[in-house]
Amino acid sequence: MLSSLNVPLVPLATDVAPAAAVLASVLLSLVTIHFASKLGGEVTQRLGLPPVLGELLAGVMVGVSVLHLVVFPEGGGTADTSVILQLVQWVHHLDTTALGAVFDIQSEVINILAELGVIILLFEIGLELDLRQLTKVGVQAVVVAVAGVALPFVLGTVGLITLFHTPTIPAIFAGAALTATSIGITSKVLAELGQLQSREGQIIVGAAVIDDVLGIIVLAVVASLAKTGTVDITHVVVLIVSSVAFLGGAILLGNVFNKTFVGVVAALKTRGNVVIPAIGFAFLMAFLADALQLEAILGAFAAGLVLDETDARHELEELIKPVSDLVVPIFFVVVGAKSDLTLLNPFVAENRAGLVLAGFLVVIGILTKLSSGWLVFGQAGVNRLAIGLGMVPRGEVGLVFAGIGTAVGAFDKPLEVAIVIMVILTTFVAPPLLRLAFGRSEPPMVTLEEQAP
Amino acid sequence: MLSSLNVPLVPLATDVAPAAAVLASVLLSLVTIHFASKLGGEVTQRLGLPPVLGELLAGVMVGVSVLHLVVFPEGGGTADTSVILQLVQWVHHLDTTALGAVFDIQSEVINILAELGVIILLFEIGLELDLRQLTKVGVQAVVVAVAGVALPFVLGTVGLITLFHTPTIPAIFAGAALTATSIGITSKVLAELGQLQSREGQIIVGAAVIDDVLGIIVLAVVASLAKTGTVDITHVVVLIVSSVAFLGGAILLGNVFNKTFVGVVAALKTRGNVVIPAIGFAFLMAFLADALQLEAILGAFAAGLVLDETDARHELEELIKPVSDLVVPIFFVVVGAKSDLTLLNPFVAENRAGLVLAGFLVVIGILTKLSSGWLVFGQAGVNRLAIGLGMVPRGEVGLVFAGIGTAVGAFDKPLEVAIVIMVILTTFVAPPLLRLAFGRSEPPMVTLEEQAP
Repeated sequence: MLSSLNVPLVPLATDVAPAAAVLASVLLSLVTIHFASKLGGEVTQRLGLPPVLGELLAGVMVGVSVLHLVVFPEGGGTADTSVILQLVQWVHHLDTTALGAVFDIQSEVINILAELGVIILLFEIGLELDLRQLTKVGVQAVVVAVAGVALPFVLGTVGLITLFHTPTIPAIFAGAALTATSIGITSKVLAELGQLQSREGQIIVGAAVIDDVLGIIVLAVVASLAKTGTVDITHVVVLIVSSVAFLGGAILLGNVFNKTFVGVVAALKTRGNVVIPAIGFAFLMAFLADALQLEAILGAFAAGLVLDETDARHELEELIKPVSDLVVPIFFVVVGAKSDLTLLNPFVAENRAGLVLAGFLVVIGILTKLSSGWLVFGQAGVNRLAIGLGMVPRGEVGLVFAGIGTAVGAFDKPLEVAIVIMVILTTFVAPPLLRLAFGRSEPPMVTLEEQAP
Repeated sequence: MLSSLNVPLVPLATDVAPAAAVLASVLLSLVTIHFASKLGGEVTQRLGLPPVLGELLAGVMVGVSVLHLVVFPEGGGTADTSVILQLVQWVHHLDTTALGAVFDIQSEVINILAELGVIILLFEIGLELDLRQLTKVGVQAVVVAVAGVALPFVLGTVGLITLFHTPTIPAIFAGAALTATSIGITSKVLAELGQLQSREGQIIVGAAVIDDVLGIIVLAVVASLAKTGTVDITHVVVLIVSSVAFLGGAILLGNVFNKTFVGVVAALKTRGNVVIPAIGFAFLMAFLADALQLEAILGAFAAGLVLDETDARHELEELIKPVSDLVVPIFFVVVGAKSDLTLLNPFVAENRAGLVLAGFLVVIGILTKLSSGWLVFGQAGVNRLAIGLGMVPRGEVGLVFAGIGTAVGAFDKPLEVAIVIMVILTTFVAPPLLRLAFGRSEPPMVTLEEQAP
């Protein structure tokens, strides 16, 4: 195995990055990410907080805000500011061009691993949920999702225009960023609190999925408004039809997929006879969702829901666990690593205008999602506070909205900073608050026990 | 989760590749690779052949030789010849520049996943092996490895010079390519035949590891000869010292690592408390091996050997299995996909000169490795044929040697073609022959039973 000395036979764009240096930087990044995620998760666990909060905070520690171990070009990181890349450069004697190329490629690899992580997380969440239970709270989930998109969008946009005299297009983009809900962070916290199967958990996950679909539509509308000044109605209709068709189709055909899956598993005689068909199905559904202009994670979630019905479910859950334990933390640490907490520093002059705006956005962002939780009806004794809090974290979805707004030039610097701060604060504040909100109804030790394998 | 719409905030080299398109192409490639690996593995299994042969052949089917689903820039593939990239282009409306960038990045991601696959394979192999058993056959392993490097190198080089009038430098490079042994392919076949713990299996794996270290040294010598006309003795001494120090150090400090690992596992209370420290240790050792100019897989193998001694070993083996089942096939399919079997076509005029040379190299390549097996002494009743055959497959190591020779301009076209053909034939011929050689001493059904989880 001398792949470290591999020299491609044909010149190509990635030629300048020696394969061994790329591998070395990926290995070091993964070791750092795994070490940080365990350290953070264990500390927050001992404090009685969800481990995923610790993983996010550990990401902040190793990321662009503090240690600069795991940084990304799209966050303004460079190979010179990455401690890992500096080490790899020293070991592999890279020149500046090669170093930059290695940095770019390893960032892409870590990004893809993080995306595969959240795909596998949503597949696992789908496996743990029961479709029949989920449809029972379907109406409530729709109400929470619609209110959770409409309220922050309208109040955020109008508030920015009237109170801060923000021009219309930037205000609309900021309003759109306020609508996001991070299904990954929310569902992981629920799983860690043992609340995934509770009525509240089911409503939150259902609403977060619908919120995701609505978010895609809102973004399409806003982007076309910003670009052409008009709304492309056909595109919006296509998005609505394809999302309904995809999720509905997956559920309706669930029985067919199920039987096929069980048959395939029974027919296979070599190693990986359960895990490969399962992950293959999840990845295929993720691709199909992406091809229909939806999100890859929605496909993986649907795949999990479908396979949840099979007899192989328990074996499958056991097999997915170590895979999920390895790749899911990459996602959370990367989200943390990309969150630039130095923007919160009021002693930096250029942050101040943003901080005032951010205060407004954070208040609107939390209050409107809490209100959406209070709209749940017909569920006596349901924990409305917990449902609202479950919709609060914006996570990576909010960062993406902010990124798009910046890319099309919609924001001035203070508004951009304000949106990123809103995303960061809602993301980090929601897990401990959720823990508190659920803590009243359920003793925490039950779920703590469940977490050690 | 709207990462598909992610637009980086800062312009960068990888800007032109939309994140969603990269993710989509990675997902499709993985689905293709997993589907092909299962299909190939199941067919060969039913024919009584090692499944890994089926995975390699499935790789040939989906790769550059036949279907062009999984192709790589370094194998001369382009985005236009990749069926998967064409599909992704259609779905994501990519222009030519974006398409090329997506192709480059997804190729790097799949390459890295394949490398992580063989790293995890070697970690798993190390876990299954017993260090004390292994050291008992240490002398025999050294003899087989040294003979298995010296014989093909000398006979190959001298034969090419005398019989084919090949100039000295190209002949030496070809001789070096003949010394390779694919530790990944060999150890996987042994595991599938249930022969990893047999005396033969232990000698083969030990010899393959030593062969790998010797190969690194041979390559360093040959490359420095080709570049400067002299041998950099200091570099060779550094390589020998660092490899001995690394492997010896890992074994001597094994007890310390063990106790630390068991302590860490016991202290952790969150999910992944076993699998993350284990894989973290494997990746860290892989990085250290790479930093010492050895191979990453040697580090992972040493990590497995060390953790084999712990009480957590059986739990660890169970947890690694689904991870290994998912990533290891990526490695084998990629090796197959990169093997260009069209070079074997005698009706293509430019292949013919290479085919004659290839015939010579294949004969030398097989006979010399078989001879190395016959040199095993002091082991009454040992299957010498099986040991020799275990050293035959050149696999990815041979392809790397060929690539380096081509890159420094050492080969004319016929010699390059001949070496690639030698690598391909030794790789594909060894698994079924090993199965036959072992079949005499052990009924195959025992091991077939063991393979289904």
